[in-house]
Amino acid sequence: MRGRRTSGAVRPDDIRQHNLSLVLRHVHRDGALTRAELTQRLHLSRSTVGALVGDLAQLGLVEEVVPSGGERVGRPSHVVAPHAHGPYAVGIDVDIEHVTVAAIGLGGTIIAREVLPTSPEVTPTDLVALVAGALTGLRTTVGAASRVCGIGASVPGTVDLSTGRVGVAPNLGWEDVPLGEMLEDVADGVPVVVGNDADLAVLAEHQRGNARDCDDVVFLMGRIGVGAGIIVNGVPVRGRDGHAGEIGHNVLDPTGPPCHCGKRGCIETFLGENALLGLAGRPSRRTDTEVADLFNDARAGQREALRAMGAAAESLGRCIADLLNILNPERVLVGGTMAELLDLARAEVEAAVERYAFERSHPGVELLLPAFGADSALLGSGEIAFTALLADPR
Amino acid sequence: MRGRRTSGAVRPDDIRQHNLSLVLRHVHRDGALTRAELTQRLHLSRSTVGALVGDLAQLGLVEEVVPSGGERVGRPSHVVAPHAHGPYAVGIDVDIEHVTVAAIGLGGTIIAREVLPTSPEVTPTDLVALVAGALTGLRTTVGAASRVCGIGASVPGTVDLSTGRVGVAPNLGWEDVPLGEMLEDVADGVPVVVGNDADLAVLAEHQRGNARDCDDVVFLMGRIGVGAGIIVNGVPVRGRDGHAGEIGHNVLDPTGPPCHCGKRGCIETFLGENALLGLAGRPSRRTDTEVADLFNDARAGQREALRAMGAAAESLGRCIADLLNILNPERVLVGGTMAELLDLARAEVEAAVERYAFERSHPGVELLLPAFGADSALLGSGEIAFTALLADPR
Repeated sequence: MRGRRTSGAVRPDDIRQHNLSLVLRHVHRDGALTRAELTQRLHLSRSTVGALVGDLAQLGLVEEVVPSGGERVGRPSHVVAPHAHGPYAVGIDVDIEHVTVAAIGLGGTIIAREVLPTSPEVTPTDLVALVAGALTGLRTTVGAASRVCGIGASVPGTVDLSTGRVGVAPNLGWEDVPLGEMLEDVADGVPVVVGNDADLAVLAEHQRGNARDCDDVVFLMGRIGVGAGIIVNGVPVRGRDGHAGEIGHNVLDPTGPPCHCGKRGCIETFLGENALLGLAGRPSRRTDTEVADLFNDARAGQREALRAMGAAAESLGRCIADLLNILNPERVLVGGTMAELLDLARAEVEAAVERYAFERSHPGVELLLPAFGADSALLGSGEIAFTALLADPR
Repeated sequence: MRGRRTSGAVRPDDIRQHNLSLVLRHVHRDGALTRAELTQRLHLSRSTVGALVGDLAQLGLVEEVVPSGGERVGRPSHVVAPHAHGPYAVGIDVDIEHVTVAAIGLGGTIIAREVLPTSPEVTPTDLVALVAGALTGLRTTVGAASRVCGIGASVPGTVDLSTGRVGVAPNLGWEDVPLGEMLEDVADGVPVVVGNDADLAVLAEHQRGNARDCDDVVFLMGRIGVGAGIIVNGVPVRGRDGHAGEIGHNVLDPTGPPCHCGKRGCIETFLGENALLGLAGRPSRRTDTEVADLFNDARAGQREALRAMGAAAESLGRCIADLLNILNPERVLVGGTMAELLDLARAEVEAAVERYAFERSHPGVELLLPAFGADSALLGSGEIAFTALLADPR
């Protein structure tokens, strides 16, 4: 029963669009490819691949170039590469103290970026005004030869993918914000898609990063909040409302600390940045600087900082174990501030995973840092902005 | 990025097999359908549908019949129905005190079944011998006009789907049992597939039961152990090793009762049948009769029995809440003994879900009993036995 859905027969009409899309996806994911590589991968004839590449070139999406560099002798092979002046996506990563706006080309290259400081009190209106300014700046930087094909935004909160509405982004104090519509108002007709940061991070890592060619993977994003982006059978898990991955609100201990969500003892209250600062006896007013200082102190061996890391490592291991039991993924990527925690206390985290996971689910599971560091969610926001173009390049 | 995979171009050659498979799947899932209904559903021409139906009839898989009954006036429409003497699947449900072996026709109809008493100490060899006897009996009952197209077996344990090997079935005391191979030895060349009970239960309910047309659903199976069968985006979640759904081993309380898995405080130790008996102060030697008595006593208002149900309802609600947070499904089906618990203490279970779930994940989620009662896993074992035939009816 796996995979095939019992809806929609295949008709010859669908094939050309499917195959154009397929060629563009391969070039988008892998960068430059020779025609021979495309022919082999797609199990199509050379002439069919030639025609598809010709169509995509005419559409200004790819170009055939001689690769620069290389030491090969003889006539160099042309490669099919994303067009240098092809359309680009705008990716927006909304974080608590800054927002990043970037122009991202086919192939996932960041062409230009602007990082704008904000504050946890930023209103949606102020944020959209900042983004609008950055969009103008990026257009100038990229130049008029290229056009924007889509805008994607990453938000640390729950998002209704179909409407772009943010349900709740607790650490920004946002509730029921029509962010997609607000961005469309400054987007000059370019389509806008909004997603959750962990969902977008796993998308980018699955496409070209440390979850590449891995179809069962969880990206655990821990900044102030804790959430998971999940891919199963190669397909993102969103759930009924797009709220899948809210593992930060699984209760570790019903008598634990109060959570902003109204419950007590949620994983976030043991593992998020506020929890880390609290465990180390630091001020309850969290800032990026406070968090960075805590990690520096832990690396320098400061006792309270280390104790906080040890306790959080135990909770991180238990959280990962719960995900392993339910999803049995091949890899778990740990991002955000939790990436630093894993880096600092990997042995403790792995020991806790072993202690809490079902014995058959954890052996050999890889705990990895994201290939794109802090840029995973930003790059994922670019990916969703390219979705429409990739689905139908015409 | 959702859905489409970047591998495999579509060629016209694939289309006929795909469409034959599609027609057979529709008839298998929905029973008799008119040609007009098939034409409309598949967006194919009438003549194409006619040719596909003709091919399937020639293969002995479907037949066109005048439906019996009905009060309609005028010439009755012929319907395309599973062939009365078409191939059948054998489904096997291995439970702790009995094994059920059934002949299941296309369309999911149980044609005949044998229920054989066993014991928790049954060895794999003894069990396979029992099944072999039942297979012979079923062949006689069904008659020589039909052939067996596949055998599926459901086991309360972890299963490697690709090899049919049972990793661990703790309540049978089985570890690393090559059940698939052992069944093949008595199967006269018929292919054998083995699956986990919760995984198969959700499959059957998704196909024709209470998860029909619902692509994000969890089937929480609680007998002695507790496990989940999960469908996301319409596709079963198996994980890297086929062990997804082991939520019974998520730790509710690290200082809780010891679990057979070696940890303490797993959900199973608060929610399984042994836990229920223990909470009510009943003997630790669990039998089907003891469990049934406990539920009868609770229904009759016996105080200890009710207290046990109340405590287990709290744990069941917390377990469901954890699944809602991570997967945000549309429905949760509760099966096995836990179905009786939900039936008896729905208000308490729902209150606990509300107390523990992330506020945006639970409103409107339906908690349902399985449409097929205790037969969901059995019917699911029939479904996996039909997989090969449905994928390629030729």
